[in-house]
Amino acid sequence: MKVLILGAGGFLGGRLARALARRGTLRGRPITGLALADVAPPPMPEAPFPVESLKIDIADPASVAARIAPGTDVIFHLAAIVSAHAEEDLDAGMAVNMGGSLNVFERCRALGSCPVLVFASSIAVYGGAVPDPVTDATFLNPQTSYGTQKAVAELLLNDYSRRGLVDGRGLRLPSISVRPGRPNRAASAFMSGIFREPLSGQEAICPVGSDFAHYYLGPRRCVENLIRAAELEAAALGQNRCMTMPGRRWTIGQMIAAMTEVAGAAPARLIRWEPQPEIERIVSGWRDDIRADRALALGLTADDSFADNIRQFLEDDLPGGPVVS
Amino acid sequence: MKVLILGAGGFLGGRLARALARRGTLRGRPITGLALADVAPPPMPEAPFPVESLKIDIADPASVAARIAPGTDVIFHLAAIVSAHAEEDLDAGMAVNMGGSLNVFERCRALGSCPVLVFASSIAVYGGAVPDPVTDATFLNPQTSYGTQKAVAELLLNDYSRRGLVDGRGLRLPSISVRPGRPNRAASAFMSGIFREPLSGQEAICPVGSDFAHYYLGPRRCVENLIRAAELEAAALGQNRCMTMPGRRWTIGQMIAAMTEVAGAAPARLIRWEPQPEIERIVSGWRDDIRADRALALGLTADDSFADNIRQFLEDDLPGGPVVS
Ligand SMILES: NC(=O)c1ccc[n+]([C@@H]2O[C@H](COP(=O)([O-])OP(=O)(O)OC[C@H]3O[C@@H](n4cnc5c(N)ncnc54)[C@H](O)[C@@H]3O)[C@@H](O)[C@H]2O)c1
Ligand SMILES: NC(=O)c1ccc[n+]([C@@H]2O[C@H](COP(=O)([O-])OP(=O)(O)OC[C@H]3O[C@@H](n4cnc5c(N)ncnc54)[C@H](O)[C@@H]3O)[C@@H](O)[C@H]2O)c1
Repeated sequence: MKVLILGAGGFLGGRLARALARRGTLRGRPITGLALADVAPPPMPEAPFPVESLKIDIADPASVAARIAPGTDVIFHLAAIVSAHAEEDLDAGMAVNMGGSLNVFERCRALGSCPVLVFASSIAVYGGAVPDPVTDATFLNPQTSYGTQKAVAELLLNDYSRRGLVDGRGLRLPSISVRPGRPNRAASAFMSGIFREPLSGQEAICPVGSDFAHYYLGPRRCVENLIRAAELEAAALGQNRCMTMPGRRWTIGQMIAAMTEVAGAAPARLIRWEPQPEIERIVSGWRDDIRADRALALGLTADDSFADNIRQFLEDDLPGGPVVS
Repeated sequence: MKVLILGAGGFLGGRLARALARRGTLRGRPITGLALADVAPPPMPEAPFPVESLKIDIADPASVAARIAPGTDVIFHLAAIVSAHAEEDLDAGMAVNMGGSLNVFERCRALGSCPVLVFASSIAVYGGAVPDPVTDATFLNPQTSYGTQKAVAELLLNDYSRRGLVDGRGLRLPSISVRPGRPNRAASAFMSGIFREPLSGQEAICPVGSDFAHYYLGPRRCVENLIRAAELEAAALGQNRCMTMPGRRWTIGQMIAAMTEVAGAAPARLIRWEPQPEIERIVSGWRDDIRADRALALGLTADDSFADNIRQFLEDDLPGGPVVS
């Protein structure tokens, strides 16, 4: 089983690589090689099989042809330009999120071996005036260029799969929280920042009210779900290969209560409530009443609680435990 | 008012050109120039304003840049490769239906003048396991490469419109019947052939049963609706610029009865019933219980009856009346 991760240098790609290294098998067979591809060199995990680092630019068909080798059995396609970047730079988003995905599907077609391809879409394909709840049968009505480009890639993945050119599985990822590392400029950055920074002893700004609700998943479950999606039999998927990855709807207040349950009252005191109308305007256009019935029926799972999610963040990303300031 | 028709050499493009020539105005202003662009030279209508013939290949960005002139106020984008052709030749469909549409949107972006762009999508964007009735809020779930490429163009048209790069209006055309001329490579060709050929005294094959239902519109109403779509104010459209053009659901049996009502019993006897599995496979993936509430509310209209539609075909395309064989 030869496995390739596109976007392996990113948040989820790096964790997926480590999870595969721990696991050693995929689709019931031993992994015999793992290729980690990204624009920048990805971190290399310890693994019981050869791990290779590849420089790739998915926006460039020649780079894709050179880097996706014949004999690749399973591809995880996580390479993308994030939402705020795609909104600021239409050309970059079109070239990577849409064109890059098409380049990957075309390379699979050229290989002729119909590899399994797990594609990370996003709940940003949803939005606007569509009735609640948002289900797998809801109109994709993206309100951003990022969401549009993900929706286009979903349509193409379905068509290329129908034609037998690739064995696609598209998952609309919920907002993944808690994301470690430095804050980014995404409108959703606070959804991780108000836990990550206080648990590290730093202040964070919450730009929305405590009753703001959204659809979340922790990174561990997300990686498990990506692996589970790769292991599904094509026959179980039917014609439409894309579906929402299970998440849970939480309010900011519920999530902060979960942090307090796990880490005591101190972190929550580091949250400064400062309404930011521009952020509120953007995030209030997002959908939160989302159902992932297809994926749940196929064995993918959501988090049990946000408290678990905080515990996992402490274990995985703050092994010294919360900082008491 | 400078107007451009892409695909002006086609069935609907030619009729639209004649309708604009008769009308002389668009969006409340006199038409001062009409450019008719196609891969092959389009027919030139008599008009009270200058009409220009342009050779264009929308799959080629340089050709698009050369042919879509600054100062173009309204573009009707009807250029496409039809369904059976796009199914046989994925590269051609991707290059024209998806890539060509993107080239046109990108050219509008480069012009910087946000022209009105009426795009002919198709009800082939619908299909598969989605609940009836199919409304403007139904999941786009195309079952063909043609439908996929139209759905992608819709998503991009919405995003480019949201960004103010083009003033898009996407209309999902019902199957247009009766289409004159020679049969084309569309899987739906028989939906016109079983009327056109018998009314001209020739045999025609019906590859599906008489209770096969589908969603239709006559060419006259279709052209009126395309013009109406161009005349709408952007503010009336909202964020999602794409909607189904009104049509009517008829069974093959109802349509043949309408032909008999208008032209007597002889034509229907020229229909040979011969099941064709490949055609049945494609058309059975299409949906027929389709609602066009948004377009109806905006003043677009469906046919009154299929008998009217047969009468219009006789007037417009068989001025000598039906051939009695
Ligand atoms: N994290 C979330 O909350 C979330 C939510 C929904 C969807 N997603 C999707 O999941 C995937 C992974 O998310 P993430 O949080 O790990 O993102 P990330 O930004 O941390 O990682 C994406 C990786 O893609 C790489 N990349 C960008 N352009 C590339 C190119 N042209 N060629 C090759 N690699 C390129 C980047 O270098 C980066 O390492 C992305 O597709 C993202 O859109 C993430
Ligand atoms: N007629 C229908 O039943 C129907 C139904 C749904 C949607 N539509 C859509 O409506 C539009 C018009 O339909 P039609 O029936 O007039 O089709 P048509 O095939 O008669 O006309 C399409 C025209 O596009 C031109 N064309 C093809 N490739 C081109 C290219 N690369 N560059 C420039 N021009 C190119 C062709 O030469 C042709 O003249 C199409 O976009 C079609 O997909 C039609």
